[in-house]
Amino acid sequence: MATVPLLLDAEAAPAARAVFDDIRAKRDSDQVNNFWRALAADPALMSATWDRLQAVMAPGALDPLTKELIYIAVSVTNGCGYCIHSHTAAARAKGMTPAQHGELMAVIAMAAQTNALATALQVETDARFRA
Amino acid sequence: MATVPLLLDAEAAPAARAVFDDIRAKRDSDQVNNFWRALAADPALMSATWDRLQAVMAPGALDPLTKELIYIAVSVTNGCGYCIHSHTAAARAKGMTPAQHGELMAVIAMAAQTNALATALQVETDARFRA
Amino acid sequence: MATVPLLLDAEAAPAARAVFDDIRAKRDSDQVNNFWRALAADPALMSATWDRLQAVMAPGALDPLTKELIYIAVSVTNGCGYCIHSHTAAARAKGMTPAQHGELMAVIAMAAQTNALATALQVETDARFRA
Amino acid sequence: MATVPLLLDAEAAPAARAVFDDIRAKRDSDQVNNFWRALAADPALMSATWDRLQAVMAPGALDPLTKELIYIAVSVTNGCGYCIHSHTAAARAKGMTPAQHGELMAVIAMAAQTNALATALQVETDARFRA
Amino acid sequence: MATVPLLLDAEAAPAARAVFDDIRAKRDSDQVNNFWRALAADPALMSATWDRLQAVMAPGALDPLTKELIYIAVSVTNGCGYCIHSHTAAARAKGMTPAQHGELMAVIAMAAQTNALATALQVETDARFRA
Amino acid sequence: MATVPLLLDAEAAPAARAVFDDIRAKRDSDQVNNFWRALAADPALMSATWDRLQAVMAPGALDPLTKELIYIAVSVTNGCGYCIHSHTAAARAKGMTPAQHGELMAVIAMAAQTNALATALQVETDARFRA
Repeated sequence: MATVPLLLDAEAAPAARAVFDDIRAKRDSDQVNNFWRALAADPALMSATWDRLQAVMAPGALDPLTKELIYIAVSVTNGCGYCIHSHTAAARAKGMTPAQHGELMAVIAMAAQTNALATALQVETDARFRA
Repeated sequence: MATVPLLLDAEAAPAARAVFDDIRAKRDSDQVNNFWRALAADPALMSATWDRLQAVMAPGALDPLTKELIYIAVSVTNGCGYCIHSHTAAARAKGMTPAQHGELMAVIAMAAQTNALATALQVETDARFRA
Repeated sequence: MATVPLLLDAEAAPAARAVFDDIRAKRDSDQVNNFWRALAADPALMSATWDRLQAVMAPGALDPLTKELIYIAVSVTNGCGYCIHSHTAAARAKGMTPAQHGELMAVIAMAAQTNALATALQVETDARFRA
Repeated sequence: MATVPLLLDAEAAPAARAVFDDIRAKRDSDQVNNFWRALAADPALMSATWDRLQAVMAPGALDPLTKELIYIAVSVTNGCGYCIHSHTAAARAKGMTPAQHGELMAVIAMAAQTNALATALQVETDARFRA
Repeated sequence: MATVPLLLDAEAAPAARAVFDDIRAKRDSDQVNNFWRALAADPALMSATWDRLQAVMAPGALDPLTKELIYIAVSVTNGCGYCIHSHTAAARAKGMTPAQHGELMAVIAMAAQTNALATALQVETDARFRA
Repeated sequence: MATVPLLLDAEAAPAARAVFDDIRAKRDSDQVNNFWRALAADPALMSATWDRLQAVMAPGALDPLTKELIYIAVSVTNGCGYCIHSHTAAARAKGMTPAQHGELMAVIAMAAQTNALATALQVETDARFRA
């Protein structure tokens, strides 16, 4: 159970309900995820998060699927179960294939491993990386 | 300073020297990074890490630059300074533009933020993500 | 399920039962939380933890509610679900309002975000911070 | 060294220079910290971060010093050296006393410790915390 | 629920089924854990992980129980519930006593605590540690 | 530089100086590490940490070297550079061989890797681990 109530539309303040509506319109879906229902108790935080998320995840120099893969990598490393589930679903909706998912897993595991080794050995950064 | 000596070629065992040579050949460079010199005290660990790294980072369902971006995302979240420097340099060598780097930063920061919120609120995973 | 049994009073050694009794007395409640029942298999660890917790969380230069907010911030960043639930409940019992909870969430999310950026960019510490 | 250049005013795009000027005005100081100079290569990210930071850290239901203490707690747990230095300096500028700093350290250390224990023992959340 | 199906033997590709068989033979058990069933969708990743795990956890300069204790320490610090459960069970199967488990808990908690303090205070490494 | 002064003996309060003296006596060395000099500004925190550290690291059901290996594993995973240096030095002083250090590295890297995979795949804990 969440530490806050997951607000239904009828329970939310008008400012939060406006974000619910915008989410539905932008995502072309009736469903509003629990994350937003948990944030709805604080419409200012909810709205700032939703606005920024859209700006960051929009197509740009990186395509939306690549952005989802990066999002999953961060979420795994932070151990956020909710985020792993929601962004894995989002990546699949944006076309991630099983083979791509497998390689994502392999890169995340490889990085976790060499991160641990470089940290354990306290390796000094090579001068050439700083050029 | 590292917790182990960074072995020069002349100081390394033959098995480690063979990995040094393979790194030079595969990367077409005379330089061997400190990470490998730190690992060289344990040729078995060094060799297993080098072999696996090549397999994981080879072109496949994901292209090499995308793999570097994922690697950076994990390294940032784990706070591995060495890894951030080395893989940012590698991503640039593989063509990462400043605009792509900027969007990578923005996605990592966004994910860190919503990871924290979903965890802080202990949001329950939506049933739809599990389907 | 925990990796150890959650000991009932009747199952606990006298030294652990004494801590149960002290918890009940100090907290003026019949309830002993699962955390303490899990620790009860090792009365020395349990007792050292309980003694130190009381000393640290007592009113001092920081008030007890501020201490709970700090405790939540650490627990969120470490991803400890149990701790987030227990200290959010404790903060509410000590008077945390919904508005304060919302601002706590916003500060935690902001810090997570700029932590990620400063780490990703490997920003050097300004000399002025060291003065 | 940072992974990006720390831009001087003369090197920054107009949109970034405008943020530099706003930071100087709001903080009533000539100095612009390295964090902002590192972000200046991406004025959109820089500006979004600066705008949000001001909104989050403004006085509200929590006072500015309490917000800095929470910021430090997150930064310590994430291991962000830059952030620990900058927000410890900020907390002192907002009146944090040595005694308050000492208690902050003690609470962070206590939370780190019980987080580890609750996680290691995989303690189930008590039903009462969910009410 | 996992983000991927947990493959039954009949659903797995021949290369994954071969790993299932090897696990059963090496562990002298009919049971194949969920971790391997989740990895089975990607036989190359599964097989590389299984091969490396056996090499790393084999008796050597450190005995197998000590290796499990180290594995638990990492898993707790990373907050991986699955890993904590599986390696605590493995440590018990290899002879870990309740007293050893209690001391493991105490060392992990102590390290978490002094890690937080050393990081929070940004203590400089003593020259003598580098010798 | 640390966020607090590293107190010399002459600068420390009597209660902190008494801990300095006890450290010198117990460790049979004139040297007091920076960690304790940083903590000396808060003698109560310093003393509680020192007392507890001695109790936890004393020989018991686990030998002192095994405890140091566990300490290193936690410190690496938390990314605490100071702690990695100090406990690697301590482990060597207690007899850790290069081969043991190599296997410690390999186990830490393996655990980091499978932690990431189990978390990324959100694998459900097997019922048998709970028995």
